[in-house]
Amino acid sequence: MKNNYCVIMAGGVGSRFWPFSTNKKPKQFLDFFGTGRSFLQMTFDRFSKIVPVENIYIASNSDYKDLILEQLPEISENQVLLEPARRNTAPCIAYAMNKIYTLNKEANVIVSPSDHLILKEDDFISTIKEGLEYTRQNDNILTLGIKPNRPETGYGYIQIAENDGKSRFYKAKTFTEKPNLELAKIFLDSGEFLWNSGMFIWNAKTIIAAFDSYLEEVSNKFKAGAEFYGTPKEQEYINSIYQSCTNISIDYAILEKADNVHVLAANFGWSDLGTWGSIYEHSEKDTEQNVTLKCKSLLYDCKDNIIALPDGKLAVVQGLEDYIVAEADKVLLICKKSEEQRIRQFVNDTLVKIGEDYI
Amino acid sequence: MKNNYCVIMAGGVGSRFWPFSTNKKPKQFLDFFGTGRSFLQMTFDRFSKIVPVENIYIASNSDYKDLILEQLPEISENQVLLEPARRNTAPCIAYAMNKIYTLNKEANVIVSPSDHLILKEDDFISTIKEGLEYTRQNDNILTLGIKPNRPETGYGYIQIAENDGKSRFYKAKTFTEKPNLELAKIFLDSGEFLWNSGMFIWNAKTIIAAFDSYLEEVSNKFKAGAEFYGTPKEQEYINSIYQSCTNISIDYAILEKADNVHVLAANFGWSDLGTWGSIYEHSEKDTEQNVTLKCKSLLYDCKDNIIALPDGKLAVVQGLEDYIVAEADKVLLICKKSEEQRIRQFVNDTLVKIGEDYI
Repeated sequence: MKNNYCVIMAGGVGSRFWPFSTNKKPKQFLDFFGTGRSFLQMTFDRFSKIVPVENIYIASNSDYKDLILEQLPEISENQVLLEPARRNTAPCIAYAMNKIYTLNKEANVIVSPSDHLILKEDDFISTIKEGLEYTRQNDNILTLGIKPNRPETGYGYIQIAENDGKSRFYKAKTFTEKPNLELAKIFLDSGEFLWNSGMFIWNAKTIIAAFDSYLEEVSNKFKAGAEFYGTPKEQEYINSIYQSCTNISIDYAILEKADNVHVLAANFGWSDLGTWGSIYEHSEKDTEQNVTLKCKSLLYDCKDNIIALPDGKLAVVQGLEDYIVAEADKVLLICKKSEEQRIRQFVNDTLVKIGEDYI
Repeated sequence: MKNNYCVIMAGGVGSRFWPFSTNKKPKQFLDFFGTGRSFLQMTFDRFSKIVPVENIYIASNSDYKDLILEQLPEISENQVLLEPARRNTAPCIAYAMNKIYTLNKEANVIVSPSDHLILKEDDFISTIKEGLEYTRQNDNILTLGIKPNRPETGYGYIQIAENDGKSRFYKAKTFTEKPNLELAKIFLDSGEFLWNSGMFIWNAKTIIAAFDSYLEEVSNKFKAGAEFYGTPKEQEYINSIYQSCTNISIDYAILEKADNVHVLAANFGWSDLGTWGSIYEHSEKDTEQNVTLKCKSLLYDCKDNIIALPDGKLAVVQGLEDYIVAEADKVLLICKKSEEQRIRQFVNDTLVKIGEDYI
């Protein structure tokens, strides 16, 4: 247990949920469902049942340091890894793994996003424990694959090799980014594909060896910082090298290339909640299938909407069907649910035409 | 000129424009069109070209005293008449006329709402001057009638008797509240009907005599206060009698009954701006016929909407047609333009189900 570590990646900007989620307070820091805990806090709560609290690290952008320490008073500043620039997941993970490896050569680590939904926590905990036991004994890269229940086009898929038919562990064959619907249906029907959850388990030694093989330049930069990790000079060192790191995802840099990637097939009620549509699907609905998040609402002739205003506000809405109504600070967004992929464009237009104060 | 007075009635609660207009700051105090002056200020500005500033009185609910003095620093507290309860226009006018008559037995007065739109100010000023000259010489009640240009169902109508064909003054025959469309068309085609603007001109002696005849109880209460008007005891006296006054409009109490009511036919680009629809009609539109009031907006696939958020806010709206989007303080309203008559119901539901903080 004392060799078990957790890295929670909490650097996302949450622009898909703009303006409800903003640069200043992205999705992972919000309590979308009014449970009293943000996504980050819920993720932390889950892992604190598996990993000693002092072994849980939060990797995020420097901008969010205060928010993280405020939301997670249980952790120390040393457990917050601050990225001075956005360089996707590979540099972030290289930093975290090198720091942890410096502290503990036997470290066995689960790496997870901070903003996903897990409905069956017991299954989740037993699955993570099983994975950690596996990587304690095997120098393989383990990724958590979710059994798909629909031809979802918003997720990545992992093709798995056949196994003995008893184990939940499979060798990974191929990785596919968001497929079109036709392909997603073929994946689903084949039974050979799992959703890529973005959660990884490995021992520190194994992943560092993989970085050495497939992303050597980045690996060397973080290795060279070993003497600074855990010292007052750590941040200064990270700041000096981070900007020059390749901007690349761990999937693309390592998982699609390494030959020791295995998949643990899981089924713990997972969603990455990456779209308003998925938030809508997982939220409580009124009799007309409207979802109201955080605020109060009075709805007339309305159905299938998702309404998310700041706490304490009231939405009085008449005659809307299948819309997103979201607000924060100075911005109100009204958009058809079916058009939510355009929100990124709206954010960009706002930046260009209105000003950065508004995003 | 020194005998000319003006009473601006500014007690409306503006619930038709809720939540953009609220109990705390009703429509007359808002700068809907972003001109830098509220409706009340614009009304005051117009009359200050006709009547000495010290002869302009503002009648309103006690709640709005501070707002009035803040928006009109040119006037003294003595010029603000505060109604401790809502009793419609007859008691309000009885109060104002008795106070003015106490000060000046020759007073010649224009009484006007505070929240109407006047597009042709020069025509307006010459019409009011003509009316004041008429009531200086005639002991008649004069009401301003507007030549209708459409079968509007939201206004009251005044039927006029034939005159010599040269004068703009007519004897009033009948008053009709908001007619249905069929009747409104008949009114329009007949040429005998004018819109009731709610603006009245009379000398103080004449209207007080009319109150004596048709609303004696109310008249007596305000006559009995003569010794207090203009003294520190005025408000205390008004507070002691106001609650017990009949809740009735001047139209119903006096104009529909008196036989000396005349109409001055006018045509100065008037609208009572009593609905979102009329605000929409009189506002500047973008190429897709959208109106944005006060706030900024980025609109996609939108047409025929009216969007009114507080100053400094941004509305990003996709895929809406013919809606009202209005916000203030803690409430966001989204409602089809064609359903705006239901806003009163929404306000009431909010009061009952959510709480008075929200209205």
